[in-house]
Amino acid sequence: MKRKVIFLFMLALTGLVAYAQQSLWGGQNIVSPEIHPDNTVTFRFYAPKAVKVQVSGDFLPSQKVDTPFGKADVPGAADLKEGKDGVWEYTTPEPLPSELYNYSFLVDGLKVTDPNNIYVSRDVASVFNIFIIKGNPGDLYSVNKVAHGTVSKRWYHSDALGYDRRLTVYTPAGYETNGKRYPVLYLLHGMGGDEEAWVTLGRAVQILDNLIAQGKAKPMIVVMPNGNVDQEAAPGESSLGLYKPTMQLPRTMEGTMETTFPEIIKFVEKNYRVEKKKSARAIAGLSMGGFHSMHISKAYPDMFDYIGLFSAAILPNKEVESPIYADLEGKLKTQFAKAPKLYWIAIGKTDFLYKANQEYREMLDKNHYPYVYRETDGGHIWRNWRIYLSEFVPQLFQ
Amino acid sequence: MKRKVIFLFMLALTGLVAYAQQSLWGGQNIVSPEIHPDNTVTFRFYAPKAVKVQVSGDFLPSQKVDTPFGKADVPGAADLKEGKDGVWEYTTPEPLPSELYNYSFLVDGLKVTDPNNIYVSRDVASVFNIFIIKGNPGDLYSVNKVAHGTVSKRWYHSDALGYDRRLTVYTPAGYETNGKRYPVLYLLHGMGGDEEAWVTLGRAVQILDNLIAQGKAKPMIVVMPNGNVDQEAAPGESSLGLYKPTMQLPRTMEGTMETTFPEIIKFVEKNYRVEKKKSARAIAGLSMGGFHSMHISKAYPDMFDYIGLFSAAILPNKEVESPIYADLEGKLKTQFAKAPKLYWIAIGKTDFLYKANQEYREMLDKNHYPYVYRETDGGHIWRNWRIYLSEFVPQLFQ
Repeated sequence: MKRKVIFLFMLALTGLVAYAQQSLWGGQNIVSPEIHPDNTVTFRFYAPKAVKVQVSGDFLPSQKVDTPFGKADVPGAADLKEGKDGVWEYTTPEPLPSELYNYSFLVDGLKVTDPNNIYVSRDVASVFNIFIIKGNPGDLYSVNKVAHGTVSKRWYHSDALGYDRRLTVYTPAGYETNGKRYPVLYLLHGMGGDEEAWVTLGRAVQILDNLIAQGKAKPMIVVMPNGNVDQEAAPGESSLGLYKPTMQLPRTMEGTMETTFPEIIKFVEKNYRVEKKKSARAIAGLSMGGFHSMHISKAYPDMFDYIGLFSAAILPNKEVESPIYADLEGKLKTQFAKAPKLYWIAIGKTDFLYKANQEYREMLDKNHYPYVYRETDGGHIWRNWRIYLSEFVPQLFQ
Repeated sequence: MKRKVIFLFMLALTGLVAYAQQSLWGGQNIVSPEIHPDNTVTFRFYAPKAVKVQVSGDFLPSQKVDTPFGKADVPGAADLKEGKDGVWEYTTPEPLPSELYNYSFLVDGLKVTDPNNIYVSRDVASVFNIFIIKGNPGDLYSVNKVAHGTVSKRWYHSDALGYDRRLTVYTPAGYETNGKRYPVLYLLHGMGGDEEAWVTLGRAVQILDNLIAQGKAKPMIVVMPNGNVDQEAAPGESSLGLYKPTMQLPRTMEGTMETTFPEIIKFVEKNYRVEKKKSARAIAGLSMGGFHSMHISKAYPDMFDYIGLFSAAILPNKEVESPIYADLEGKLKTQFAKAPKLYWIAIGKTDFLYKANQEYREMLDKNHYPYVYRETDGGHIWRNWRIYLSEFVPQLFQ
């Protein structure tokens, strides 16, 4: 009786989708990815009728492809070999260094997610699988047995934009009960991202929980707003319904995010127990969010003592006229005259924004404006932004 | 320049995974599912090398399959037809009634998610796509332009279990600022579920936001704990890392969830502005969570005035010895002598637990214990549990 009941439970649940084809005693009871003790990884895919199965992911050397704008790097692909019962397999020849990796399978050229791995992330309109190799930095991106902060999805009303908007708020462990006031990091996403990006792709919650538990970072609140002023919320979380997202949004780097940003600070300072002073406020962002952080911090030079530009999209656009972008050098002069405690610039050597960042640094150098510069390998990728967050956060509010 | 920059942005983002194969100008720029104005739906899948492509989902008539325990219902499948450029297509012959549906594709027998639909849900170890047809009840499961509550993922310490555990808390719009005290619904998941299930598969946040905005439900806090006492948190959110989940957990329906439940109430009543009285507490759950709700509510007969058993797994297990399950009739006598305001039982006609619920109701009838009974079509499925939540919540705290 008991076995039958459990079976029927499983059937009722798994039977929801295509039970007959991915049955409980069928081909999908395989482990993929399997991370071996030596950190080599085996990927498996059940596809008895396939002619070619590949795995593509950022753990493989990248390859060059032709694009309308020249050659570009994309993740490499490795062939799986067909074994018994239609299960294809590939094991990495070398152990993988500790990291959070992503991958997909290519079955006769068709990109699919791994049906044996429920852990998926979305970037704009792509969904892919993830896995973590333990060690450093993988452990920093993992949930550990430490005190955990609270993650809230909350809505605020924007008078300037005329609608309610969603943001993600991380409050550190103990916030709810200890009565203390906390400093705040405003953490901004890039183009195509939203208020979910730093939590999902960026592992910001795990990074903060772990750094705080290790005593390497001050307990702080992290506010992750939606930087697309034409969005109420992330795709699927707004009144637009379940639409297909694109990179193309009407207003992204044209001044509105920057001019309406004080509303977000006002909301946070009214609704959370925070320290309301420059030395307890930080702003950082990746790509478009780095561009926003640069312009917001200089537009409100008394607001932030800590500024982080992660692979910042420092791209003056002459088509855009916004007072926020006018008189860059004059505003920077004011900002640096007020001596922010940390102006941190980080970028990867192969980032397509490297040159734009180099020119910006040359301008800062010419004016003797102090900043800290961090250069890593790699390009315009989340792997770098997780590293930058992990290195930036310990420097805050000290 | 600008076009190139946007292109490079897109490349940097989408290029993370298998750019070359699902390129920006390739075959994946198709719309799927496409919901037409008359509510017929077209599914599209790019697979130039496939021999057979099907869509399987709960919008199709179910089909019988053989299992080791006899015939069982599983979702049906429909054939797509190959069109030009390798894009396969299927359009439903009839408009679909308003509902939240799920589906997957079957490509030469291989179950895959739709690469053109980023909206996925997970049930135990299966990931599948979802879409919503507007109307009733689809609009109730959708984000609308109404005041939104806050959803928090928070951790509490269980002294009884010896570790920190995660729960989901919905606080209604206005909670943070209006100083009022609120009633609380404790909402429990089924076997294989966790503290995420009612939010993802159950659309509880949308249902609550919408019913409260329409004036059909009292503003209330909804607490969604993890009912698997051996789990800190949902898969991927605990220190176990990114493992493959199964239905099989050591302790599920053996008394520990019920005996440790007062810890959760204590945590909530200490940490949230709630009304601390029987008439302001409700408990409800689906399947295993209905079983938990039944036993918790009778174990603590002064605690809950509102009890909801949704497709409850009323399955006495003679192998389990827990004081919580002893003397069922005596405890029910005490519970009903204290006259709870609502004892609500709901189940689908074809649920495999129908008979167990019928026997339970006969026992209640025999003892003249009042309850409200709701019978729907269908079986042990989320479609029913969303309906039950939508009907239960308006009856609470009136």
